[in-house]
Amino acid sequence: MDAMILHAADAVKKDLGGGTAREVLAHTEQMMIVRVSFLRDAVGSIHTHPHCQSTYILSGRFRFNVDGRDVEVGPGDTLSFPSGMPHGTLCLEEGQLLDIFTPRRDDFL
Amino acid sequence: MDAMILHAADAVKKDLGGGTAREVLAHTEQMMIVRVSFLRDAVGSIHTHPHCQSTYILSGRFRFNVDGRDVEVGPGDTLSFPSGMPHGTLCLEEGQLLDIFTPRRDDFL
Repeated sequence: MDAMILHAADAVKKDLGGGTAREVLAHTEQMMIVRVSFLRDAVGSIHTHPHCQSTYILSGRFRFNVDGRDVEVGPGDTLSFPSGMPHGTLCLEEGQLLDIFTPRRDDFL
Repeated sequence: MDAMILHAADAVKKDLGGGTAREVLAHTEQMMIVRVSFLRDAVGSIHTHPHCQSTYILSGRFRFNVDGRDVEVGPGDTLSFPSGMPHGTLCLEEGQLLDIFTPRRDDFL
């Protein structure tokens, strides 16, 4: 399997509606980095997926709900949760998240 | 398995010498986020590990060598490479990387 190197200028931003947009960044079959932009009050509805997820808050403020627990996070804060755990977020101040998945989100390609 | 949520203020910075320092951020058994700080001219020697790795450049400039190929990267650039692939970096301008591993780097705990 090859390495993937993606320069920021080559990332493609996909408008998801509702004040959110997604950029799929470097990935292999085992792992994928995704940057998600949120306008204030935009919502990532509570959902689950079979992928394990970690999230790094790049900017802004967010209220996450992870497995029924509310937590407010800002720049440099991180979350990590296992496969199948319900999670969602409300953007309190415009910002960006890095979501990292293992394995790759083939549904994002 | 539980979720892990780590606020930036609770991260512990470990000086690795040679102008580098590591903060282990949120992780589960399947995935770990690690922030690595580099002073200019600091080196991450070429090495391998059985974990798959993705890297997001938070700040600064770096020359990576991945599988024998040189590439210069800066903020927002990303790399992703499979288990066992040789890689290393030279810091060209002081900055920080996010390294994400699957599975977790138990050797960092």
